[in-house]
Amino acid sequence: MNQKSTREIERKFLIKRLPAKLTRAKQYRIFQGYLATEPDERHVRLRKKGKNVSLTFKRVRGYVRDEREVALTAKQFAALWPGTAGRRLQKTRYEIPWKSLSIEIDVYRGKNRGLVVAEVEFPNHTACRKFEPPDWFGREVTGVRRYSNIRLATE
Amino acid sequence: MNQKSTREIERKFLIKRLPAKLTRAKQYRIFQGYLATEPDERHVRLRKKGKNVSLTFKRVRGYVRDEREVALTAKQFAALWPGTAGRRLQKTRYEIPWKSLSIEIDVYRGKNRGLVVAEVEFPNHTACRKFEPPDWFGREVTGVRRYSNIRLATE
Repeated sequence: MNQKSTREIERKFLIKRLPAKLTRAKQYRIFQGYLATEPDERHVRLRKKGKNVSLTFKRVRGYVRDEREVALTAKQFAALWPGTAGRRLQKTRYEIPWKSLSIEIDVYRGKNRGLVVAEVEFPNHTACRKFEPPDWFGREVTGVRRYSNIRLATE
Repeated sequence: MNQKSTREIERKFLIKRLPAKLTRAKQYRIFQGYLATEPDERHVRLRKKGKNVSLTFKRVRGYVRDEREVALTAKQFAALWPGTAGRRLQKTRYEIPWKSLSIEIDVYRGKNRGLVVAEVEFPNHTACRKFEPPDWFGREVTGVRRYSNIRLATE
């Protein structure tokens, strides 16, 4: 059983151009949907990433997230997934190593086609503050609601 | 794996006195908490009923509910349960057969101690409308937010 409970420290950016090494990156198709969301960014999400399905509880407060994720069986996922109708999105995620960090690039599909967003997760607040974005990064959109996955899924 | 997806048709009542046969009824200790709730009564609930743990997605629209419930493993439950802190309730549930129906009596504990509520589930809308409450039933509180489990858990 794959389970984790973490506080994530993340920054999110639009990107100016896709890096050349994207084609060599690990990639996954992701389908996700929201069972319930609260305006203060507490939510319950279902996700299919490659062959793995999971349920995640998240509370977001600025840069910091409380996250609880449990792997689901295919049957559990199938029973709950219809509850996300109308609140779904799909994207392809590329994982690119960057210095000691990992950059996740999400290329959205379906209704959000054309949007590409990079997320970087940090081990602590200092690393988060000191991060120097690569030159192919564009505007930072950390905390910008327009680019939250919930908004992208429901609007 | 115990899974169900149902539309429940229910009515809820306060009760004037506990029926004598309560002591012979099946009973369960229930602990439940809410991971996320939306004002229009869409929510994700965790529940421990006796030894069984489950996660339930519900959408409530008046008398009718869309409900998706999956049994969880003890590990899945333990990973998610802390996310319900501050949004929990506990009660003892008694199940009493009544004509062709089953009456569930919830005797609340903890911060809602003193509250006793009866719920009756019906096979269809006609049975729901024609139901004649036993004389130990009090005021009907179907749809009254004050007595929703979410309100009882969070206030």
